[in-house]
Amino acid sequence: MKHAATTVMHGGDLGAIRRRFPQAPEPWLDLSTGINPIAYPIAAAAETWSRLPGRADDEALCAVAAQRFGLRDPAMIVAAPGTQALIQLLPRLVAKSRVGIVGPTYEEHEVSWRRHGHEVTVVERFGEASDRDVAVVVNPDNPTGRLLTTAQLRLCKATLVVDEAFVDFLPASASLAGDLPHNAIVLRSFGKTYGLAGLRLGFAIAQPDVAARLREELGPWAVSGPALAIGKAALGDAAWFRTTAARLNRDGVRLDAMLAQAGVTHLGGTPLFRLTQHEESAEIVERLGRHGIHVRAFSHEPQWLRFGLPGSETAFRRLAVALGI
Amino acid sequence: MKHAATTVMHGGDLGAIRRRFPQAPEPWLDLSTGINPIAYPIAAAAETWSRLPGRADDEALCAVAAQRFGLRDPAMIVAAPGTQALIQLLPRLVAKSRVGIVGPTYEEHEVSWRRHGHEVTVVERFGEASDRDVAVVVNPDNPTGRLLTTAQLRLCKATLVVDEAFVDFLPASASLAGDLPHNAIVLRSFGKTYGLAGLRLGFAIAQPDVAARLREELGPWAVSGPALAIGKAALGDAAWFRTTAARLNRDGVRLDAMLAQAGVTHLGGTPLFRLTQHEESAEIVERLGRHGIHVRAFSHEPQWLRFGLPGSETAFRRLAVALGI
Repeated sequence: MKHAATTVMHGGDLGAIRRRFPQAPEPWLDLSTGINPIAYPIAAAAETWSRLPGRADDEALCAVAAQRFGLRDPAMIVAAPGTQALIQLLPRLVAKSRVGIVGPTYEEHEVSWRRHGHEVTVVERFGEASDRDVAVVVNPDNPTGRLLTTAQLRLCKATLVVDEAFVDFLPASASLAGDLPHNAIVLRSFGKTYGLAGLRLGFAIAQPDVAARLREELGPWAVSGPALAIGKAALGDAAWFRTTAARLNRDGVRLDAMLAQAGVTHLGGTPLFRLTQHEESAEIVERLGRHGIHVRAFSHEPQWLRFGLPGSETAFRRLAVALGI
Repeated sequence: MKHAATTVMHGGDLGAIRRRFPQAPEPWLDLSTGINPIAYPIAAAAETWSRLPGRADDEALCAVAAQRFGLRDPAMIVAAPGTQALIQLLPRLVAKSRVGIVGPTYEEHEVSWRRHGHEVTVVERFGEASDRDVAVVVNPDNPTGRLLTTAQLRLCKATLVVDEAFVDFLPASASLAGDLPHNAIVLRSFGKTYGLAGLRLGFAIAQPDVAARLREELGPWAVSGPALAIGKAALGDAAWFRTTAARLNRDGVRLDAMLAQAGVTHLGGTPLFRLTQHEESAEIVERLGRHGIHVRAFSHEPQWLRFGLPGSETAFRRLAVALGI
């Protein structure tokens, strides 16, 4: 067995930052991810933990998800234990290809396609990616928020993987899922939008034959019983979604104002995070770290910082104090 | 993408049996699996649902699991979202091989190795399997309970996959995990022993380089936050395990007596299920079905029935009434 050891840095892991700032006040305020800080209320019957999830549970979730994502055919959707499981899987199902990834972006795509021996190029423009056998685009992009229109995506003749992890709170027209081109596979995240990243639930949307193949590769009982039950309830809850979208919008405006006041330049983002630039980003990380606040830095762009949304009045105030505003 | 549609029948899915016996009393008593009917008490902090599990959470679980399974090195253990995820994965990591599976047994092994183009033979004796490139054995076997000794397993020169899903309540000497041969990969189930099959947690035990490769293929955040937390608590709870082992032993003796009284022949099993034989097994399935009790039948052995353990006095009485004893 071939062995490769590629480690990607991500937000959301407090271990290293805690060791770096051992004197920081607990609990840490983790703004290093784009996970909604207000979680969908958890309610899963004891039975969902104890018994093996049945096929009917999976189908019930997929029916609700299909409606939520505007699909005409529930056979086009596949539930997985997190989108990452699909990112791991897709490069295994395609013959050795020339893969273009629009980047820099969420790094796990590149790592996974490379691991399986594909010829990967990270390109700046989507047009360069779509010249290859497989084009991968995170849309809207993480961390920049750059958004390609579905019209642009439809021009692609290659096998097209669109990671729509952060599309949920954008207008429905931003997603390719509802009128899926035959050559496209769309990935949708559950945990970010619903604040339940630990639950592990994500979806692939693809033509029925490709979806069936993905389902088969994931195997039976890939998604936990609680994830099936909570996912079904959450994806069917339009009222919660509307309320949450409005709150995120207000909180985003407030965060933007605070960051501007702190002299940080807004570069982009999505309703769940903001990307900023500052000449002294490393100092901001230090200052926030001493206050027990974790934000996401980027080794390839040292002036960038990504801020997730504070989830409470207390969290906003801690951030204001730490930013010295 | 190549498409194959192989469906394996399993216990634990009440959909079909409910449709077959629409008049049966609810709730159904599901004895069709080997899942412990008494679940480990669930307690997972809200944080385990909301945030992404960190590397430290995975390492903490694996440290406890390594101790529980008697491993000298925690680098030899890999946590997965259920053993099935590992069964799906293993055939992808091995070059096209001649694979011998001791069977008939739990069918997902055969399905998965075949799906990835290996040359699979189901053999009757372990000696025949170990002549091939890869030998797969479920030990103790499901459903027969046939147990190969670790001394027998050590004779194998092939790459050896030992599925120890039902080994937990046998003497520790039944497991190959504690003194793992260099050519072996052991699979251990969590959900069956702890009555939490819906949680999705299982382990592979292998040499550190193989374990690292499996970890990489599963990718980050493969196991949910609640599964990491509950798994760690449960695997470290020696008192619960002892009490449960004693109860399962008593309940197994009681089940054996009931089945004998009903004229059913005991063929084998494990502390979590019994395999039986009866000339009129189909009639027993009918009779139990009308009483809302589901047991596992086997298409390749029509006289066989597998009974899981009833988990309460009520469940035992329902079974006695349905068996007419």
